[in-house]
Amino acid sequence: MKRTAFFISDGTGLTAEALGNSLLAQFEKIEFERITAPYIDDADKASNMVARINKSAEQDGSRPLVFDTIVDSKIRDIIATAEGFMVDIFGTFLNPLEQELQSSSSYSVGKSHSINNAGRYEQRIHAVNFALDNDDGARTRHYNEADLILIGASRSGKTPSCLYLALQYGVKAANYPITEEDLDDQKLPDLLKPHKDKIFGLTIEPERLATIRNERRPNSRYSSLKQCMHEIEEIEAMYRRERIPYLNTTAYSVEEIATRIMVTTGLKRNR
Amino acid sequence: MKRTAFFISDGTGLTAEALGNSLLAQFEKIEFERITAPYIDDADKASNMVARINKSAEQDGSRPLVFDTIVDSKIRDIIATAEGFMVDIFGTFLNPLEQELQSSSSYSVGKSHSINNAGRYEQRIHAVNFALDNDDGARTRHYNEADLILIGASRSGKTPSCLYLALQYGVKAANYPITEEDLDDQKLPDLLKPHKDKIFGLTIEPERLATIRNERRPNSRYSSLKQCMHEIEEIEAMYRRERIPYLNTTAYSVEEIATRIMVTTGLKRNR
Repeated sequence: MKRTAFFISDGTGLTAEALGNSLLAQFEKIEFERITAPYIDDADKASNMVARINKSAEQDGSRPLVFDTIVDSKIRDIIATAEGFMVDIFGTFLNPLEQELQSSSSYSVGKSHSINNAGRYEQRIHAVNFALDNDDGARTRHYNEADLILIGASRSGKTPSCLYLALQYGVKAANYPITEEDLDDQKLPDLLKPHKDKIFGLTIEPERLATIRNERRPNSRYSSLKQCMHEIEEIEAMYRRERIPYLNTTAYSVEEIATRIMVTTGLKRNR
Repeated sequence: MKRTAFFISDGTGLTAEALGNSLLAQFEKIEFERITAPYIDDADKASNMVARINKSAEQDGSRPLVFDTIVDSKIRDIIATAEGFMVDIFGTFLNPLEQELQSSSSYSVGKSHSINNAGRYEQRIHAVNFALDNDDGARTRHYNEADLILIGASRSGKTPSCLYLALQYGVKAANYPITEEDLDDQKLPDLLKPHKDKIFGLTIEPERLATIRNERRPNSRYSSLKQCMHEIEEIEAMYRRERIPYLNTTAYSVEEIATRIMVTTGLKRNR
């Protein structure tokens, strides 16, 4: 059975999507067609949305689910006339919050993903640039400035995790690939030693690592299961020996890896 | 006046944060202390949270706001015993959705930011790698594979936007910096011509560009307002002449830039 879900916002729609998807994920038996409509910020666009929702209702033979985070109650009222099942975030929670806070809402649009605080936004962008400049062990001389140094085998997920930590949390994360030369003595490489308190290790199932590496360099020694098993075994031994906190990334998304690192290290977010 | 807000989740907490922040952004007069508590997934952790919330209530002299996206109703019931003002997402919407969908929730935890669909998740990670490999005009030979090519002056926001497009939407975005040599004739550089349908331009206020460039190379010709004004004027003239869609990024966050590009280009997200 197929149902259509609309995520409607007067801003980016990212909040409506996140909320809607977290609710829809609970209904695994139903197939959803998802439609995101950002920047629905005037009466005309709202009326067009109503027509789109009603058309979906007709085509599907069932009313679409409508998750909306529109702040302006006039625009929300137009959306509410559609043939949809409404999950209306601001309509549901804003009034009770106004009462609790004894303060009236500013009804200002698109605040959650805009540049509310220029200094904090710049910290996020600085953190992205820092991650790019300090990717793949490129410039260890910047490690004093890092909030975090991710280490692990090549292709264990360090770079996307650093970028997500930067974009989401404004954390300056460098990364350093542990290579075979580093693995001779199961010790932390010398140039990482002064920064030991900032180091977090990633590991991954050797089978998964071999699959990922094979996409980059098919049928190489680098991609062989034997080589991956060897590297991971040595790296995990080093983590344990040096008491480095680490995470197995095999089953985790970058969002989960980043959040778990934040929780484990107790790092403060800069946003 | 200060109030404390908790974002509590049995997963990453990203949805609870996004929703909570979008509601709190409406109350500009109140200062909020924000505390995110991810992975609250058993009764013990929930009881500890209750103690933390109650302690905040006592210290603040007012009850904290509690935004929770906990799926398991047993854990939610524990949280609900705290001295907080509850904004309970699943408690509010899950039951009505079950009725509408004539289907019961799977009550499974942490679905919205986990790897639900391995193929789509890999597309996001591929897109991140693509953005890194094709940053700063590095390898124009991969442009056939790109979904999008962002162009613009150096430091106009291309790289963070490409990375966000990759992480959030799974879109393969390359970027090409327009340099002075490209600006002689107000035409699109030759090597971009075959890909004209994939090109999107960024521009930025010269004053803002000069500020950003000064952080990288203080007091250089590159960072001078005169130089920035010249480049932006020529680049915008080229965009208009070549009819390239473009966006002024000055006031926008990467989230807004990426979403507006998705809307303008009609690109399909790969997630």
